[in-house]
Amino acid sequence: MRYQEYTIEGRNAVLEAYRADQPIDRLFLLDGCQDGPVATIRREARKKGTPVRFVTRERLDQLSETGKHQGVIAYAAAYEYAEVEEILDAARQKGEAPFLFLLDNIEDPHNLGAIIRTANLAGAHGVIIPKNRAVGLTAAAAKASAGAVYHTPVARVTNLVNTMETLKKEGLWFVCADMKGTVMYDLDLKGPIGLVIGNEGSGVGRLVREKCDMAASIPMKGDIDSLNASVAAGILAYEAVRQRRAAGVF
Amino acid sequence: MRYQEYTIEGRNAVLEAYRADQPIDRLFLLDGCQDGPVATIRREARKKGTPVRFVTRERLDQLSETGKHQGVIAYAAAYEYAEVEEILDAARQKGEAPFLFLLDNIEDPHNLGAIIRTANLAGAHGVIIPKNRAVGLTAAAAKASAGAVYHTPVARVTNLVNTMETLKKEGLWFVCADMKGTVMYDLDLKGPIGLVIGNEGSGVGRLVREKCDMAASIPMKGDIDSLNASVAAGILAYEAVRQRRAAGVF
Repeated sequence: MRYQEYTIEGRNAVLEAYRADQPIDRLFLLDGCQDGPVATIRREARKKGTPVRFVTRERLDQLSETGKHQGVIAYAAAYEYAEVEEILDAARQKGEAPFLFLLDNIEDPHNLGAIIRTANLAGAHGVIIPKNRAVGLTAAAAKASAGAVYHTPVARVTNLVNTMETLKKEGLWFVCADMKGTVMYDLDLKGPIGLVIGNEGSGVGRLVREKCDMAASIPMKGDIDSLNASVAAGILAYEAVRQRRAAGVF
Repeated sequence: MRYQEYTIEGRNAVLEAYRADQPIDRLFLLDGCQDGPVATIRREARKKGTPVRFVTRERLDQLSETGKHQGVIAYAAAYEYAEVEEILDAARQKGEAPFLFLLDNIEDPHNLGAIIRTANLAGAHGVIIPKNRAVGLTAAAAKASAGAVYHTPVARVTNLVNTMETLKKEGLWFVCADMKGTVMYDLDLKGPIGLVIGNEGSGVGRLVREKCDMAASIPMKGDIDSLNASVAAGILAYEAVRQRRAAGVF
C-alpha cells in the first residue's frame, strides 16, 4: 500500500505524534474539554497549523477505531515514497524517455495533489519533491490528487540540485517555467525531460534554476503576474504532450 | 471597487447576516463563550459550513473595527458582479473576438479563483458563473485569483443555458471539455468563443452540453479519470491561446 490514512487516538499518543513531528492532518477534540493535556495538544495544533474541530462524544465514538479516544482523535496519513531510481526504472520498462516533474517547494497541498494528478494523465513517470520546506503527501494532497498518488510514484529527496545532477548523467534535460524564458512553443520538449515547477510565491530557486537547461515562458496578456502553480504545471506539461503526440511518442 | 472584504461585528449583526443568507467566509468567536446567542451562531455556522476559530479577547479586539464585537466577528466579502453585456463591450472596445469562460457549477473556491486568474492571463474578456449551486466570489476565491478579480469581470446569471442562447446570437461558439470529444488540437478555437468548464465531480450538465457547438478532449494516458477542473480549464484555454498566437491574434 503506497498511501494510507489512519487515526491516532488518546492524549498521550497524539501528543507524542506532535513531539515526533509526525504530520497531523486534522484534530478532533471533545467540545468543552479544557484540562491540562488537552490544552497542551491545542497549543501544539496551533503551532503546527492543524485544523481543529470540536465535536460531541457521540461523533468521537463514531470516528474511533480503538474505542479509547479520551476526547482526542488525530487524523494522519502515511505515504511510502518511491526512490528516484524506481521512477527511472518505470520509464525503462515502458521503453519511454523519462518524463518527470520536479517541484521546487510547492507549499499548498491542493497544488501538490493537482500536479500529481496532471503528472499521471500527461504520462509522466514520477514526481520529485524536496524534503524540507515543501509540503509532503498529506491527506489533503492525496485527496486533491484524486487517486493519482496510488499510481504515480513520488520521490522525496534531500537536495533537488544534487538529484538534478545525477539525472543529467542519465540523459535528462531540465526545463523550468520562467516568464523571461523562451516561449514554450519554440522549445523541444519531446526527449527525456524534467519539468521544474517553482514555489507558489517565489518561483524556482536560484540554484535549481541554474541547473536548468531551458527556461520556458507561457505567453500571458493580462494584468496580474502569474498563473496558479498547478495550472502553470498543467499548461507546460501539456505543451510537452502536444509535441510528443505530434512526434508519435504519446 | 469591484471587490471588498469587510467584518460584521456583534451577535445580532452576525445572526442577521446568516438569516439573510449572506455568505460568511470565516467566523471568530471568543474562546469559552457558550451562551444562548453564541450557540445559535455556532449552529448557523455549522449549517453553512463556515470555518470557526476560537480566539482570545485580545485577538478579537485587534480584529474589531467597531470595538463592539460582543465576542463575535464574521468576515464577509462583497463583489460587484458585472453584466454579460459589459463583458461583450470590453471585447468590442479592444476590437477582439469575445473570449469567455463559462463555469457550470464550479464548487471549490480555489478552483474558481485559479480559473479567473487563468482567464485574466489568457486574454479572456470575462467569466460567467451561475447563481445557484456554484460557489460565488468569496474571500477564498478572491484570494486564489491573486488579484485577477480586480481586473477580469465576472457575471452571475440565473440560467446558463439561456445566456448561451443569447450569446450565440452575438456570434459566439461554445466548446466544452469532454473526454469523448474531438482532440482539442483538431478544433478551431480562434474565433469568438466560450469555453465551458464543468463541475469538479459531475462535469458539464446535460442541458449546457447540448448547447455546446464543439466538445474538446484533452489527451490523457494515465490511470485516473480526469484532471483538476482549474488545470483542465488552463490547458484548454492555452490551446486556444496557442492557435490565436499562431494566427497572429494573441
